[in-house]
Amino acid sequence: MKPSSDALRGALTVGVDLGGTQVRAGLVDATGNVLARAASRTDGAGGPRAVLQQMLRLIAEVTRGVEASSLAGVGVCAPGPLDGPAGVVLDIPTLPGWVDVPISDWLSEALALPVTLENDGVGAAIGEWRFGAGRGLSDFVYVTVSTGIGGGVIADGRVLRGHRQMAAHLGHMTIDRLGEVCACGNRGCWEAQASGTALGAFARLRAAQTPDSSLARHGVAVDARHVIEGARAGDALSLQLVAREAELLGVGIVNLLHLYSPRAVVIGGGVSSGFDLLRPGIEHQIRLRAMPAFRGVPVVASTLGQNSGIIGAACAALPQDGVP
Amino acid sequence: MKPSSDALRGALTVGVDLGGTQVRAGLVDATGNVLARAASRTDGAGGPRAVLQQMLRLIAEVTRGVEASSLAGVGVCAPGPLDGPAGVVLDIPTLPGWVDVPISDWLSEALALPVTLENDGVGAAIGEWRFGAGRGLSDFVYVTVSTGIGGGVIADGRVLRGHRQMAAHLGHMTIDRLGEVCACGNRGCWEAQASGTALGAFARLRAAQTPDSSLARHGVAVDARHVIEGARAGDALSLQLVAREAELLGVGIVNLLHLYSPRAVVIGGGVSSGFDLLRPGIEHQIRLRAMPAFRGVPVVASTLGQNSGIIGAACAALPQDGVP
Repeated sequence: MKPSSDALRGALTVGVDLGGTQVRAGLVDATGNVLARAASRTDGAGGPRAVLQQMLRLIAEVTRGVEASSLAGVGVCAPGPLDGPAGVVLDIPTLPGWVDVPISDWLSEALALPVTLENDGVGAAIGEWRFGAGRGLSDFVYVTVSTGIGGGVIADGRVLRGHRQMAAHLGHMTIDRLGEVCACGNRGCWEAQASGTALGAFARLRAAQTPDSSLARHGVAVDARHVIEGARAGDALSLQLVAREAELLGVGIVNLLHLYSPRAVVIGGGVSSGFDLLRPGIEHQIRLRAMPAFRGVPVVASTLGQNSGIIGAACAALPQDGVP
Repeated sequence: MKPSSDALRGALTVGVDLGGTQVRAGLVDATGNVLARAASRTDGAGGPRAVLQQMLRLIAEVTRGVEASSLAGVGVCAPGPLDGPAGVVLDIPTLPGWVDVPISDWLSEALALPVTLENDGVGAAIGEWRFGAGRGLSDFVYVTVSTGIGGGVIADGRVLRGHRQMAAHLGHMTIDRLGEVCACGNRGCWEAQASGTALGAFARLRAAQTPDSSLARHGVAVDARHVIEGARAGDALSLQLVAREAELLGVGIVNLLHLYSPRAVVIGGGVSSGFDLLRPGIEHQIRLRAMPAFRGVPVVASTLGQNSGIIGAACAALPQDGVP
């Protein structure tokens, strides 16, 4: 059941969330409801032009039956670095060929609609701010923990942008200056220590040394998801790994408290499926490490889940929503 | 020569910089010139009331001969945490008795002038933004490296405040999660690793093991200043210590680039007297650790030096200057 009446003129937008593994699109109304949703596996090997075709197919799917006049535009969020105002993806290290891709122009030409481009972490933060766990908060930080660690910051009632809109590369904050080498080339980045990828890699190492753990049966395929499942089932190694992950997440979150002074920290991304298990360890680190004035700041799970990027991208495409 | 004509009605302010070792006051005009300046050793033992009397004496000294009508108000900056809008210093760990001190009300009552209160790091950032090395930049970070590490952030053309105006506690960002214990109770804070105090403590340790270093003759009194002097004179240990200090400063500065995306990083505080020696090492860390898009951001020395706090506090007291 898709709305197409005159009352909806320009009231709908499409949010597209370009990820390294999935491309997702959703038809979103002005109150943040996802009216239709579609996704497919990112055609990384096909390069930018193939992914553009995927996006167009997904957009067609979610807007089937919707009158053109109802659509205000399309918002895309993508991994950075990107030039938002110019609508150009500068570089996606995980997707071959994505260098200087003018994705907004391409889509806009194909669809005859305005297209906006937003960093995926910031987009998801905007989604959570407008319609999710950060609703009504003038200061909050959104952190997504999955393949990498990303996020976005709302400060003093506005999206924190910084020069060239490149603020809030949260995952590339060093928390352990002699720690693991990161994909970015730095050492000890939060992402290199605490992303889902880092958790999976460490779990594989430990599982190989712990044959009686339930993780061992996954062999070299052990990943973060197995660790969360194992911990739920009471596997001792998985519980240890979850405790370590919570500690590493907690160290970074305390930094975010001291640096941005949010009213809340919202956690999304794949690893947040284990948020209930991680939360006590994160809160323990806050008690240990944060200055007293910051200890009461709640850390909560994203409420939009996998839709935060779609909804955030869609918000950015609503001209009347005026995301500052 | 102090101005007191009608043309200056409300055009002057007094900035007061309350530090753990010195209280400084300056008479500042609307273009950031310090017309008169006075300072005295902070009477820490006397408690808040004694320091209030010091402030009143210093303010009287710098405003001698100035007509009351020329003075728009007084701005105070003080170490945090504090409640700026309420004008209350919540806690200064280095000064006994400074808990919940309504300094703005006290001063305002004694002087019959409006009084504003600002965090010292943020105040200095505002000074550098209006009249110093950050002039005209909509995004920059000011870092002061002395007894501790503090600072302030200008982002998207405004002072970054955050919830309860507590953003930008830069010194309490963990860069080494298993590192030195910090005065705040956390481990591996930037301040605990790279402040002037930390540099002095490490220098004392190394000097005791290195009798042929020029540092050794200072015995247990070795401090950061001696290290800078020693490095200028070519002392091998001092040069090593400067290189290590630059590395530690660089790690934190790279985090600030990734987190706030400034157009420049401005370094002030006592340790910045050795900025010319530290700069190559800081820049090396940026090349090693920052993502390519951030590598070109310049790191420069404060241009207001010891006056940045006075000038920043004075700016905040100028109603027409409207620091956002």
